[in-house]
Amino acid sequence: MNETIELMMRHRSVRKFKPDPVSEEQLATIVAAGQMASSSSSVQAYSVVAVTEPELKSKLAALAGNQAYVEECPVFLVWCADLYRLSDAAKRHQPEKESYADSTENFMVATIDVALASQNAALAAESFGFGIVYIGGLRNKIEEVTELLGLPEGVYPVFGMCVGIADQETGIRPRLPLNAVLHRNRYDAEETLRGVESYDETTTAYMTARTNGERTTPWSELMAKRLTEPARLQMKSYLEGRGFMKR
Amino acid sequence: MNETIELMMRHRSVRKFKPDPVSEEQLATIVAAGQMASSSSSVQAYSVVAVTEPELKSKLAALAGNQAYVEECPVFLVWCADLYRLSDAAKRHQPEKESYADSTENFMVATIDVALASQNAALAAESFGFGIVYIGGLRNKIEEVTELLGLPEGVYPVFGMCVGIADQETGIRPRLPLNAVLHRNRYDAEETLRGVESYDETTTAYMTARTNGERTTPWSELMAKRLTEPARLQMKSYLEGRGFMKR
Repeated sequence: MNETIELMMRHRSVRKFKPDPVSEEQLATIVAAGQMASSSSSVQAYSVVAVTEPELKSKLAALAGNQAYVEECPVFLVWCADLYRLSDAAKRHQPEKESYADSTENFMVATIDVALASQNAALAAESFGFGIVYIGGLRNKIEEVTELLGLPEGVYPVFGMCVGIADQETGIRPRLPLNAVLHRNRYDAEETLRGVESYDETTTAYMTARTNGERTTPWSELMAKRLTEPARLQMKSYLEGRGFMKR
Repeated sequence: MNETIELMMRHRSVRKFKPDPVSEEQLATIVAAGQMASSSSSVQAYSVVAVTEPELKSKLAALAGNQAYVEECPVFLVWCADLYRLSDAAKRHQPEKESYADSTENFMVATIDVALASQNAALAAESFGFGIVYIGGLRNKIEEVTELLGLPEGVYPVFGMCVGIADQETGIRPRLPLNAVLHRNRYDAEETLRGVESYDETTTAYMTARTNGERTTPWSELMAKRLTEPARLQMKSYLEGRGFMKR
């Protein structure tokens, strides 16, 4: 064990923030630390929009499904997959050649790149004593978010992230047992399902204790409900419309 | 600054490893630290296959484009997006309902989830003194990798990661300047391209010094070449064939 791993082990999402600001220097360090994550062939296919304007945060909070903490946090980071710089480079240096910015592979490269960078940044923020929460709800009204932030072609908002001083105490949510996610040499489908079985017990016990018996649904039931509910089905047409994953 | 940020700032990819093993306890801690990353609604839609069998590593090294370090590293982690557990839960708890495991949104959730977990794991490994390198080349022959590791439907290998003690000294590659990736309230397309301009100078100077003048191509020229080369164009049909992003 060491400081870094202990920091990871203490992670929990924060959904209530004090108004204290994130300083310019802290923000710069958080993003610079994000940039140090690995990137496929050094493409660095991401951008981050740091939103601090109250009106803009308020609009984004509404678009993300009325999540008040998006508005309350001092800085809301919008992490974007970004092939704009690469497309510009291709137009300048290879004007006669076809671009593959519309391939599924390059869509994946950009989406993975931004996720790696954002996770470094999340930990860097936490190492400063801030709390964070990822906001996938930013994809609810992704067209509107795209327009609001003036994102050019080849750029899409993957998720948001609130950063600020936590104004709440929350428990650390148990994760799937190791045997459910860690396989040896080949995928072990039976073992992963055994892991789910024991995890259902763990999470039910955890939630029952935390909610005084109000929420007792096992994890796998919650997941079943989630997977059978239509969610963000506009994503494919949105992404294709932005020039992504057309082939 | 603190230990965690300093660790991030020291990151460089390692492509030569000593044979020293990663202990069972270290591997378990690395993966457990990965699991502590945020996950969309706690779906934890990922698995990791730890490959240590020499023959299997050798096959994967060949499939990844003859990258010797995939074979040489003591443990090669294959990070997979995984909707198998969720699909199983849906079949058990909501047998009469339609599943959206095939939506682009759920493909993204799984792909982002695994990237966040892997980046925590990468840092955890580095905090133990190991070096790592992500292997996107694992997607070169993704069908073969899928079969070799026995991945069930709803699971695909996103990237690999070599972990081990570094047997080389490498420099820290400069990143895009902050003004190229960090935007304020709205995306600034002009500023990001100005950032690329100065980065071209930085990277050329860096590579010229490191290769004694052998490699001097500016970053944006390399990126233009990369984006105009067809790469992994089978990804879309592969993913759809695995039941992903069909709608």
